[in-house]
Amino acid sequence: MTSLQGKDILRASDLTMDEVELIMRTAFQFERMMGTGQRIASLSGSVLATLFYEPSTRTRLSFESAMLRMGGQVISVAEARLSSSAAKGETLFDTGKMIENYADVVVIRHPTVGSAAELADGAAIPVINGGDGAGEHPTQALLDLFTIRKEKGRVEGLTVALVGDLRNGRTVHSLCSLLANFGTRFYFVAPPGLTMPTAITGPLRNLGVEVIETDSVRSAAVDSDILYVIRLQKERFEDQLEYERLKGSYVVDADLVKASKPGVTILHPLPRVDEIKSEVDAYEGAAYFRQAANGVVVRMALLALVLGRI
Amino acid sequence: MTSLQGKDILRASDLTMDEVELIMRTAFQFERMMGTGQRIASLSGSVLATLFYEPSTRTRLSFESAMLRMGGQVISVAEARLSSSAAKGETLFDTGKMIENYADVVVIRHPTVGSAAELADGAAIPVINGGDGAGEHPTQALLDLFTIRKEKGRVEGLTVALVGDLRNGRTVHSLCSLLANFGTRFYFVAPPGLTMPTAITGPLRNLGVEVIETDSVRSAAVDSDILYVIRLQKERFEDQLEYERLKGSYVVDADLVKASKPGVTILHPLPRVDEIKSEVDAYEGAAYFRQAANGVVVRMALLALVLGRI
Amino acid sequence: MTSLQGKDILRASDLTMDEVELIMRTAFQFERMMGTGQRIASLSGSVLATLFYEPSTRTRLSFESAMLRMGGQVISVAEARLSSSAAKGETLFDTGKMIENYADVVVIRHPTVGSAAELADGAAIPVINGGDGAGEHPTQALLDLFTIRKEKGRVEGLTVALVGDLRNGRTVHSLCSLLANFGTRFYFVAPPGLTMPTAITGPLRNLGVEVIETDSVRSAAVDSDILYVIRLQKERFEDQLEYERLKGSYVVDADLVKASKPGVTILHPLPRVDEIKSEVDAYEGAAYFRQAANGVVVRMALLALVLGRI
Repeated sequence: MTSLQGKDILRASDLTMDEVELIMRTAFQFERMMGTGQRIASLSGSVLATLFYEPSTRTRLSFESAMLRMGGQVISVAEARLSSSAAKGETLFDTGKMIENYADVVVIRHPTVGSAAELADGAAIPVINGGDGAGEHPTQALLDLFTIRKEKGRVEGLTVALVGDLRNGRTVHSLCSLLANFGTRFYFVAPPGLTMPTAITGPLRNLGVEVIETDSVRSAAVDSDILYVIRLQKERFEDQLEYERLKGSYVVDADLVKASKPGVTILHPLPRVDEIKSEVDAYEGAAYFRQAANGVVVRMALLALVLGRI
Repeated sequence: MTSLQGKDILRASDLTMDEVELIMRTAFQFERMMGTGQRIASLSGSVLATLFYEPSTRTRLSFESAMLRMGGQVISVAEARLSSSAAKGETLFDTGKMIENYADVVVIRHPTVGSAAELADGAAIPVINGGDGAGEHPTQALLDLFTIRKEKGRVEGLTVALVGDLRNGRTVHSLCSLLANFGTRFYFVAPPGLTMPTAITGPLRNLGVEVIETDSVRSAAVDSDILYVIRLQKERFEDQLEYERLKGSYVVDADLVKASKPGVTILHPLPRVDEIKSEVDAYEGAAYFRQAANGVVVRMALLALVLGRI
Repeated sequence: MTSLQGKDILRASDLTMDEVELIMRTAFQFERMMGTGQRIASLSGSVLATLFYEPSTRTRLSFESAMLRMGGQVISVAEARLSSSAAKGETLFDTGKMIENYADVVVIRHPTVGSAAELADGAAIPVINGGDGAGEHPTQALLDLFTIRKEKGRVEGLTVALVGDLRNGRTVHSLCSLLANFGTRFYFVAPPGLTMPTAITGPLRNLGVEVIETDSVRSAAVDSDILYVIRLQKERFEDQLEYERLKGSYVVDADLVKASKPGVTILHPLPRVDEIKSEVDAYEGAAYFRQAANGVVVRMALLALVLGRI
């Protein structure tokens, strides 16, 4: 029987289809239980540690809320760069050896690719990758998948447009490797220089996945069931005029929604800055706030599963 | 029946007399229960989020302690400027949409007037204003009111001197609008340039409230039941010599207490720096440390009431 | 009967032998209970405050984990320099008056000698010193003592080598005053200028304790049951070349272990940087990670004892 007990969650691509299915099923079950006011599997006596070496309020608070709502407890280093042993030069391996004494499961966010794996080498407890630089963000991909299934009633056979800075957007990298298993067609919509890395497009095409690359949001929107928008990060542009010029053409507004495939679902990992106009919030397919809400229930499922308390 | 369930607590002046009375009554009841070792209304399963965009250890810890002592749980962003989505440019409206998924009630502290209201626009859960710049600090005003009633046995018909930087002291702004309902006479004691804004004095006078403005602490102290002292903030003075000169005349020391109306009660929202000499601590009317203690029970009452768990 | 209920834990030397014994016995008892899955004495309803004026992830998280694992709750100021009333100029005495309202016990870490005592003057609740500058770190000394007893089966009559910057290492200062009661022989191994202060060596010699001072790790290692290594802090050296030159001669590597007394136990308060090579980790006498683990159980014992819940 599939189990995630004691396992690290480092990369979306490490998960088998059975494991992904187990996480989805558990999250849906928890959601139903919460809806009827039932108490979820008790994590009473368990402690989650959140080690955040770069700011991510949303990821940190959603994990902490998930843990507390199941009766568990939390210890937290919100500013690990400032306050931790890291400042004294400790390796993440040694930090792992430390944290396994204080907690039963740990979530790490770090600016460097591979840092979650390094922590996991040291720690005997399950390590969950909460984002490692330009690397992976597997729990975001899982909640995205959950959201797609919930919004569309299915994942299979959808056309998904990913829009924005696809070169640096770790979120969409993790998501692609999950969706590839479900017969997804992709539009990759990015300005020149910020297109999806061939390290992602190559394997997808080798798997026979249909990938259409374009720099036109409109052409993708008219043919897509999902419009998944991420930020164009200002700091990635050497030429700020170029940034200002491009920004406008990647904004989702009421006009674009009108020109899109009817019923299109709009997702965004949040926080948004200008990528989606607030006028879009009232559109019923605007699912980004519901997507954020799904983060809690998916993370509850993950915590309960790796702790073997389900 | 008066209820605060689901309500935001943004400004002291938004509260009806019945609501203020309900909060006071609940706080006194909780205090009695704690005195006899009884457990207060259980908030088990509920989560408080504290979002602090500027430092205020006292306000944050007193809310968190209040929540935990009633069996609830807490998620916290102590350094929201540094660590939150705010750094990425998220609006407070969107932050509200986020936090409603993670918590059942939220306290925000922010340097900008109106920020608590903006968060409340986004968040479907109750928002409590923990201080918004030069705006309001309603829970401080409520605990001040509670303290006055406890120290004096009544609120009606007292003479209250407010002393210090009244222009920038949001604490006393919120307090004035509460006290105006109880037939209070006011002394406003401030150096030139830091006097109470006419936006406060005008409406008070229109309500028929007696207001005496002076720059002499002594003349006010001899006629007041309450001496409420706040800081002269050094950074508000362009001329530092002027600050040093003035500072001395607004300090409460043993001599001033001797010259005051017998039995005068001395309050201060804390932290104090030099405004009240430590020699005053032993005076039985020195109530500022008891005032701080009252913060917990008043905030327990507020949390239980807005969560509808009382 | 010996009791620590309501007591401050400020300096290792304040503790009587009976009190040290009580802490050790309680920690061993808790360890056995945890091993058999039993729940430790419930601190349900109690709140620990952690006030950290300088970073120490390890000390903070181990106290917080200890509190939570016994069913208690935690409020935390991880960056007290930045976010607290300290920034506004509040004295630690006043901070003590504040925190006693919010918590039942408080741990303070502060860069200034004597700060824990100043907080304790104000606070009516037990204050635990989590390290005050070059002063003391009594709970580290207690967990070191616990570790020595656990690793060696006894404390009496051992030869202990303390290696590194002994002038500034508060950890070893506290430890010396504890070990002096057990007939310990000491090697103090430090480079010139960083030797053990005579304020420590003098009293030890007056008590008849054998103290051998040297700058050679090897000569100490061959005759010691315990090798207790602390960091050479780069920032203490005016001459960086001198630092680089010395550093190498104080590193513990596989060669040194081979040259040491058979069965030598290697301790380090962690985090380590380069002082102990990772090749040493696999040696069975390398006890520094187990030492860190012991921190939780010893701090559980301390919290339960000062709260009188044992």
